Amino acid sequence: MKAVAMPTVSRVAVCGGTHGNELAGVYLVRERLKRRADGTEPVSVVTVMSNPRAVQLCVRYVETDLNRCFTRATLSAPVSETSPYEMIRSQELNALLGPKGSAQAVDLLCDLHNTTANTGLCLITYSDCDWICLHICKHLQREMASTPVRYVHFDIPLNEAYSLDSVGKHGFAMEIGPQPHSVVRSVIFSAMQEGVQLMMDWICQFNSGTLFEGGWVDVYTMVKNIDYPRDSETHVITAAVHPNLQDRDFCLLHPGDPMFLSFSGETLRYKGKEALYPFFINEGAYYEKGIALSLARKRRVEIPSVLVNKH
Amino acid sequence: MKAVAMPTVSRVAVCGGTHGNELAGVYLVRERLKRRADGTEPVSVVTVMSNPRAVQLCVRYVETDLNRCFTRATLSAPVSETSPYEMIRSQELNALLGPKGSAQAVDLLCDLHNTTANTGLCLITYSDCDWICLHICKHLQREMASTPVRYVHFDIPLNEAYSLDSVGKHGFAMEIGPQPHSVVRSVIFSAMQEGVQLMMDWICQFNSGTLFEGGWVDVYTMVKNIDYPRDSETHVITAAVHPNLQDRDFCLLHPGDPMFLSFSGETLRYKGKEALYPFFINEGAYYEKGIALSLARKRRVEIPSVLVNKH
Repeated sequence: MKAVAMPTVSRVAVCGGTHGNELAGVYLVRERLKRRADGTEPVSVVTVMSNPRAVQLCVRYVETDLNRCFTRATLSAPVSETSPYEMIRSQELNALLGPKGSAQAVDLLCDLHNTTANTGLCLITYSDCDWICLHICKHLQREMASTPVRYVHFDIPLNEAYSLDSVGKHGFAMEIGPQPHSVVRSVIFSAMQEGVQLMMDWICQFNSGTLFEGGWVDVYTMVKNIDYPRDSETHVITAAVHPNLQDRDFCLLHPGDPMFLSFSGETLRYKGKEALYPFFINEGAYYEKGIALSLARKRRVEIPSVLVNKH
Repeated sequence: MKAVAMPTVSRVAVCGGTHGNELAGVYLVRERLKRRADGTEPVSVVTVMSNPRAVQLCVRYVETDLNRCFTRATLSAPVSETSPYEMIRSQELNALLGPKGSAQAVDLLCDLHNTTANTGLCLITYSDCDWICLHICKHLQREMASTPVRYVHFDIPLNEAYSLDSVGKHGFAMEIGPQPHSVVRSVIFSAMQEGVQLMMDWICQFNSGTLFEGGWVDVYTMVKNIDYPRDSETHVITAAVHPNLQDRDFCLLHPGDPMFLSFSGETLRYKGKEALYPFFINEGAYYEKGIALSLARKRRVEIPSVLVNKH
């Protein structure tokens, strides 16, 4: 494959607190805001606390999930004083960091998240052919010794892409777990700090002309979500994730494998026909969304060498 | 030591959802409520969802922490329609299960809790000489193969005892971790189910005349709480629990041991003069209470043989 020339990554946004109780990102953003740019940085970085009201209350959101408010429809909907806070805030963030899909948008948006699931570090994106995101993923995989790094792809068109990272020309959620919500664990905080620093290092090297060799990256493409078993009348859940599956994010799940253990002791099995990779297993914030876990298909994607295209 | 004769444990309360987002207890109570007493139980058990509004919202509490509302003062304070919901609810629960300190109170109150800390199973009480609670603890220690069981003692007079379990003649919080709040983990749910069942078994055997041999139980008496390092102006925390201490609940902490790792990378050490046992390390709900961990002194307590005193 021929090296692909790509524009400089000049403007980067690092966002945290998009969910106010995902504390590694919240504290990382606070640390970064303390050490304001001194003008000597090789890249222009804007650091943003995305949902300050939710951060203040240490809740995921105040009125509605901010990280579902970045579809084209929501961003262009009329808002008034009575609109949900997060809907207003998404339009503010779009004005600051976007507008989404425009030439004015930041070149790269990295949005920091935590999960109660044992995911390690995931870069979650809407593209399986964004060479910048894939190269950053490869760089993190190479450099991070103690944290597994994976690339997760939600196959959704940009107009329908609902999360903050879709506002940048390139973008991803940097999702790290396991960490309970409303708690910060030092090891998770440090992994996030390292992930952000490695991303910055890659950007600086790329901008200064380094050629990054191509190669292969495993891409996990989301296929479907699975809900908890629920009581048909009350919709209350009747089983927890099975102990054999809990914490086994990205370990292949085969048809017939235990999936749930009901509160009365019955094992419920995976009934799909295809072995798939589970992730976001027992994520705390997804009970209300009807998601016990997500399932992905894995494939190897070949990525070209990349080089900055200096004009 | 001579065997101590004690009254029958006739009326037992099992409570969950005192904190609405501690889900093992919530689901255990729901399961128990599904299988209502069929009149053949050897002991009268009342099962209570303590804070149904908080359970509904999956939050710790709605207006104020219910499990701080059972002091004599709060229970006897005048309430009106504008009083915090939990203050009203604490008086309802006191009427149902107490009144605290009276002959009408349930004989034993077991209140189910979860923590994000790696505590295993703790029975948390206000007494280091409650032979019933200590014998139940000994029974659980003997019978539970895969869960460490410990007895934690808060040295507070009954009038000032603030938690629901203080309403019973005997009582304890059964606290199990680690589990993120708003999440139920199957292994934690099963441990709680086993703990409650073993407690019931012990009570039935005791009531039917079994003599339980005395012996020794390790008692962890709470000495003090330690807060996170905080910014002196904003009171925002500036460090997380050190990786060497995280998840090491009930492992002796020595003077000079690492305690916190600041977000800028500095290690802060335990400055106390006495080696003590840390617990509730990095409990999510205690950030707002200014508690990063609690410290306890351990000692062995000799307990007498006990026997039911049948009248």
